[in-house]
Amino acid sequence: MKNLSCVTCVCLILSTGAFANDLTKKAMDFGLKPIPTSQSELNKLTNNASNPATKEKVQLGKELYFDPRLSKSGIISCNTCHNLALGGVDGLSAAVGHKWKENPHGLNSPTVYNSVLNKAQFWDGRDPHLEAQAQGPIQADPEMAAPKDLVVKRIKSIPEYVKEFENAYGKKTKIDFKLIADTIAVFERTLITPSRYDEFLNGNKDALSKEEKEGLNVFMDKGCVSCHNDIGLGGTMQSFDHKKYDFKSGDFKGNKDGLVKTPTLRNIVETAPYFHNGNIWDLETAVKQMGKIQLGQDISDEDTNKIITFLKALTGKKPTIIYPQLPPSTSKTPKPNIK
Amino acid sequence: MKNLSCVTCVCLILSTGAFANDLTKKAMDFGLKPIPTSQSELNKLTNNASNPATKEKVQLGKELYFDPRLSKSGIISCNTCHNLALGGVDGLSAAVGHKWKENPHGLNSPTVYNSVLNKAQFWDGRDPHLEAQAQGPIQADPEMAAPKDLVVKRIKSIPEYVKEFENAYGKKTKIDFKLIADTIAVFERTLITPSRYDEFLNGNKDALSKEEKEGLNVFMDKGCVSCHNDIGLGGTMQSFDHKKYDFKSGDFKGNKDGLVKTPTLRNIVETAPYFHNGNIWDLETAVKQMGKIQLGQDISDEDTNKIITFLKALTGKKPTIIYPQLPPSTSKTPKPNIK
Repeated sequence: MKNLSCVTCVCLILSTGAFANDLTKKAMDFGLKPIPTSQSELNKLTNNASNPATKEKVQLGKELYFDPRLSKSGIISCNTCHNLALGGVDGLSAAVGHKWKENPHGLNSPTVYNSVLNKAQFWDGRDPHLEAQAQGPIQADPEMAAPKDLVVKRIKSIPEYVKEFENAYGKKTKIDFKLIADTIAVFERTLITPSRYDEFLNGNKDALSKEEKEGLNVFMDKGCVSCHNDIGLGGTMQSFDHKKYDFKSGDFKGNKDGLVKTPTLRNIVETAPYFHNGNIWDLETAVKQMGKIQLGQDISDEDTNKIITFLKALTGKKPTIIYPQLPPSTSKTPKPNIK
Repeated sequence: MKNLSCVTCVCLILSTGAFANDLTKKAMDFGLKPIPTSQSELNKLTNNASNPATKEKVQLGKELYFDPRLSKSGIISCNTCHNLALGGVDGLSAAVGHKWKENPHGLNSPTVYNSVLNKAQFWDGRDPHLEAQAQGPIQADPEMAAPKDLVVKRIKSIPEYVKEFENAYGKKTKIDFKLIADTIAVFERTLITPSRYDEFLNGNKDALSKEEKEGLNVFMDKGCVSCHNDIGLGGTMQSFDHKKYDFKSGDFKGNKDGLVKTPTLRNIVETAPYFHNGNIWDLETAVKQMGKIQLGQDISDEDTNKIITFLKALTGKKPTIIYPQLPPSTSKTPKPNIK
């Protein structure tokens, strides 16, 4: 009896191990890649070569990210719509900004976590980098609504900010709008969330449960992986037929080439509602509709559940963020304007 | 020469020491008190005896404080108007809340830092404790606009929150609106910011500079201390003649007894704009107008500057706050409603 159970045990281990090995290889073949474990490889992936991260820049970027004085009203920060406490999103269907305006194209705020892994930024993919992206919402009328020169004036009126820029970039640096956005991007580039899925792809066969491995297998077999691939499990441009979605007049219709950015699946449990228009509130519906719309197939309840079991394993470890103490405004700081 | 300079030196030390001793005594006589240094004394001061702080309650209270899902829209948290990165305020004249509504009485958001030291909460002093206060803005239509039952439903729909409440209060605890507000208050009670001024009153004669001590002396002699006293340097109800202020129709006119809460002066450099209506943007004007309106005297430029030098020493050390990771909503969580 003892010998028998030992044999069974060894067989199970071997078969589980073999499945895991095969699955890792299959995942790699399908273009899935883990977040690297070594800091130097991670840096290569996340750093902007023309403005490499330093402790000072990351700290300053964090302060700017959380500072609502970058908005015209003084009460909307980057973190309002990309809330680092809420999976990097606002949890609304469409973003709400200055004067309580909804996003005019009905677009949902994408997560800032792992956004550095995207090959394109914005739903229409119009910007390649976070540096360019960060300039958009600060200025956009229904978002933070702040003209460039207002942002620069606010920052330059605060001596402690000026000193922090000098410490980060040198005494002679000119503080302009681009540098402010670039510094925010330096911080955003650090917002990587490695998960058990990455551990698994990096070689720890036990990092995923049997059910999660099965889910990953179904995820690949059904074709989800054809758009949700690479390190970001999304973040590339894909074909988009807006007529297949629940559609309101004025809604986003894809970019000029009929493409839309595939959102990352990392931390997907935390980033409802789903799709570019935030119309879908639960993963069951999201998976089934994606199967139908993008893959032209009905995904069964059983397979949907398996896929969701896998998706839940994509919730990653967030970087520890000390809430910043922002330097106080001065009598020279342009006043908030809620009009 | 050597002897002479030694004698001068000793005399200076003696006279400075004597001035500091006298000044501490004078401050105590005027009713000024420091934040105590011992944790047990501090606990006695800040704890709610009927709901004493524990690590679990403080952590949960912090999460609720930062959670915008406590508002109807899902995008306004306690921290929106009482921003812990900005001296505990929003930096606006009058608070802006749900649907971008301004406070209908033109009232400025008071700082949450050291608010536990207030003898009364709200500008009209209508609530004695933070527990009662915390219930107000969550429900108020121009603030977070969330009915009690919506808040309770949102929290109870999130299993991790339910578990945290059980860990904090026991398995059988009923999660109701009062308990949610009480838990926020437990966190707010920890937001104490000891400053060099406290060090000075606690016996370190060198904690304030010569100029700051002079400023404290003028602050007392001019009578500022008659309202800004006790540990909070404010936080009590005082007479209020609204006709003496820059006044708009509909503005706050004091409570039924013609009183207004004196705001704390702690961290005053960080909490502009000033006064109950946030009409004053700089400390010079604030000090002079207070002299005129409340004390019936013109305070000279020189004395104003001395007072401000002292006020700057009231900027305290903020508690380190790790930005929370909030538990995700579920399909049962009532959806955000921006209407």
